Amino acid sequence: MPKSGTQTGQSTLPATRIEVNEYKSASSEIPDDPRFSFRYPQALVYSESRGTTIMSAMNAFYAQSGGVTAVINATACGVIETARKYPKKIANIYAGRNGIIGALTEDMIDTNKESAATIAALMYTPGGAFGSARYKLKGIDENRSEYERLVEVFKAHNIGYFFYNGGNDSMDTALKVSQFSKSMGFPVTCLGVPKTVDNDLPVTDNCPGFGSVAKYIAVSTQEAALDVLSMAKTSTKVFILEVMGRHAGWIAAAAGLAGKSPGDAPHIILFPEIPFKRREFLKRVRECVARYGYCVVVVSEGAAFANGKFLAEAGTRDAFGHAQLGGVAPVVANMVRENLGYKYHYAIADYLQRSARHIASDVDVKQAYAVGKAAVQFALQGKTAMMPVIKRVSDKPYRWKIESASLGRIANKEKKLPRRYITKNGFGITEAGRRYLQPLIKGENYPPYINGLPKVAKLRNHSIKAKTGTKFVV
Amino acid sequence: MPKSGTQTGQSTLPATRIEVNEYKSASSEIPDDPRFSFRYPQALVYSESRGTTIMSAMNAFYAQSGGVTAVINATACGVIETARKYPKKIANIYAGRNGIIGALTEDMIDTNKESAATIAALMYTPGGAFGSARYKLKGIDENRSEYERLVEVFKAHNIGYFFYNGGNDSMDTALKVSQFSKSMGFPVTCLGVPKTVDNDLPVTDNCPGFGSVAKYIAVSTQEAALDVLSMAKTSTKVFILEVMGRHAGWIAAAAGLAGKSPGDAPHIILFPEIPFKRREFLKRVRECVARYGYCVVVVSEGAAFANGKFLAEAGTRDAFGHAQLGGVAPVVANMVRENLGYKYHYAIADYLQRSARHIASDVDVKQAYAVGKAAVQFALQGKTAMMPVIKRVSDKPYRWKIESASLGRIANKEKKLPRRYITKNGFGITEAGRRYLQPLIKGENYPPYINGLPKVAKLRNHSIKAKTGTKFVV
Repeated sequence: MPKSGTQTGQSTLPATRIEVNEYKSASSEIPDDPRFSFRYPQALVYSESRGTTIMSAMNAFYAQSGGVTAVINATACGVIETARKYPKKIANIYAGRNGIIGALTEDMIDTNKESAATIAALMYTPGGAFGSARYKLKGIDENRSEYERLVEVFKAHNIGYFFYNGGNDSMDTALKVSQFSKSMGFPVTCLGVPKTVDNDLPVTDNCPGFGSVAKYIAVSTQEAALDVLSMAKTSTKVFILEVMGRHAGWIAAAAGLAGKSPGDAPHIILFPEIPFKRREFLKRVRECVARYGYCVVVVSEGAAFANGKFLAEAGTRDAFGHAQLGGVAPVVANMVRENLGYKYHYAIADYLQRSARHIASDVDVKQAYAVGKAAVQFALQGKTAMMPVIKRVSDKPYRWKIESASLGRIANKEKKLPRRYITKNGFGITEAGRRYLQPLIKGENYPPYINGLPKVAKLRNHSIKAKTGTKFVV
Repeated sequence: MPKSGTQTGQSTLPATRIEVNEYKSASSEIPDDPRFSFRYPQALVYSESRGTTIMSAMNAFYAQSGGVTAVINATACGVIETARKYPKKIANIYAGRNGIIGALTEDMIDTNKESAATIAALMYTPGGAFGSARYKLKGIDENRSEYERLVEVFKAHNIGYFFYNGGNDSMDTALKVSQFSKSMGFPVTCLGVPKTVDNDLPVTDNCPGFGSVAKYIAVSTQEAALDVLSMAKTSTKVFILEVMGRHAGWIAAAAGLAGKSPGDAPHIILFPEIPFKRREFLKRVRECVARYGYCVVVVSEGAAFANGKFLAEAGTRDAFGHAQLGGVAPVVANMVRENLGYKYHYAIADYLQRSARHIASDVDVKQAYAVGKAAVQFALQGKTAMMPVIKRVSDKPYRWKIESASLGRIANKEKKLPRRYITKNGFGITEAGRRYLQPLIKGENYPPYINGLPKVAKLRNHSIKAKTGTKFVV
């Protein structure tokens, strides 16, 4: 537990100091949850000058990590709006410019400079409002200096709370920072906040960000299929849609929601979990075209051969013979062309799918906010090295609640699409899969529009003053 | 003007027969437009048996042609709902299964079998509800048999009205059918009904179908740009979005609406109208990455070198050295990679853009309906070889009305993006371009949803009985 005297620059901090009894009364604001033992907040510091125990609100640091989503800013909104409700415990909320890099380089954004309206607008703004980063901290033994730097910056800015909004890697980092800061005598309350379109975090029933991509892919598949069906007589017979998901087929599976009856598109889904068999695939394409007049294929970027080689690597070469890294869709399309001769088209949704806030799932937006809010509440309850998880209470009607889980159970683990969600032939989703996926795309959460385009939050993103006096190069 | 006695199978038709005076009173339903001289409707036939002049309602034939759009069914809805209001003039509305092919093969759908609710649901159903076709009728001299067949089928089914919903080629066909049917002594009232995402029909200010693609592309560009911007520090720096428009850059231009201030994405638009210059392009990419940290490129599939060769043909080869026909996006992406080394991503919107009814422009949906409605009204006013055109009355506030134009002015002509809509450097849109495009993406016209997916019309699509007794192979 940090003492005021040992904190760098403590005297210049705008921390709100309050008496302990005031804190106690304030603590009633924190939702009581009998599942968690209440721990003394780190905001408790001993004031040597006055000789009494007083409370000092500490600051919070929020960072976005990894690939952004249509709703990661809704989580930021949940974190910031909730933290702002407890000014006696959390004085300032800083955000990392470009995620954790902002902490390492001491380039942190003062979210206090943003109006309540701007923060509220994060609810419908896609992308990462403060900047995210693909930057994985290595193990402490390999890379002690980065952890030391984080603690140095946190200390300098009186940061007692760290909210790390990301996927598997980020949960690992949050866990390590929690352990390392404690070992350094400056224990920071570290909360992981889930975010990943890949839906591959364990323990939680699903991950914020996924529901909206799932909805986008299901809607787009349904729409494009109607287009192809109506033209198939004289034009395109095979349509291929490439979707994200390098290691897990959750997004590809979501396309399956578009088809309800036999013969409905998508007729073939290619999952990373099912080794690709060229002959069976081509046979199925031929059957679909013969029977339904057309064939819609949804292929995960992670689709791979039995030997583990990605289809996308099956490789094209440029005019000079250099290997080209294209998508998987053209590889599948060329396979169809060469073997069956059908006219084909393909689409690669790429970033369009994960930024499509205009067609976000209402469930997803609400859950994204809820995990941000819960992370702050957990932190104020003294929980650390934890992550809010979504617990499904029932399928029909869909009901869910937020619980907490230890980061140790989550970090560096990957949840693949279970085999029982995939049909026996490997090309579709089962009723069990549909039951799981269906609720996650429920409801439309439309952004406001101005002149035909979605309105988005316009942040000032002012940096706070550096205090460490040292530079750190990442 | 056909006489009842000369019409094949006339006796079995469910045509409504009414006295002339009744017709006159009914004619007050038809909107009076002083611009058009009123002509005697073709539904007037002489009944030899009774020796009096009576009115016989004739049937109408509606066909969808060429690439479908998010709103072509809204036009179908406009045609059918309006025609249904005049049962004394239009008895039955038939639709071609797979467009004009349905007429040639005498496979026509009886839309009377569809409920009012189903027809109303066409308003929010993308794709072509009756099937469309890429099937161009050649000139009459080269292909007289097809025109004769059309007239044979129209005669057999007492079809006096032909509504052809398509682009440039279809307008040419509608014009020719109008002329040919007259020369054959069975003059059919032929109305072209505009539809094309390419927005390249002349005379009309814009084309139904375009506004919704424009909105999809502008919204998607804005969303993806926010994604890329937030990741650019450590990940993708150049994002390329490939859009449709093989000959005209209207769709690519629409992406320009996403950027309002200097530095906003898209930073580069590659139009078919501007010859591609590799060196200037790469220089601009480098500048954008240096200045803004990222670069968003929107490239039209029709982007070409000064010698007319498409960029898409710059060509990749498969592992065996065979030429591959990919999109233009990977070609541009590889150019960036080889010359500048930036990390890139690309998306190919393909059919997703033209079927995206979920983000349709409200203006577009309304105009799509309006041209269908007007086509029927024009036909009932005796106009033939005409097309409803959209006339812009004012930019701000955007106001428009429907007028008519002769098909001779429209058929086989192509309206390119004017140079004055493109910035001097060739990479963006001007204020004039923005003024033209902006109103067309205005308003959101959301479909209803069930379980997270858009509801769509479920048509029976029952064929009417063939009457010609002859087969025709297309």
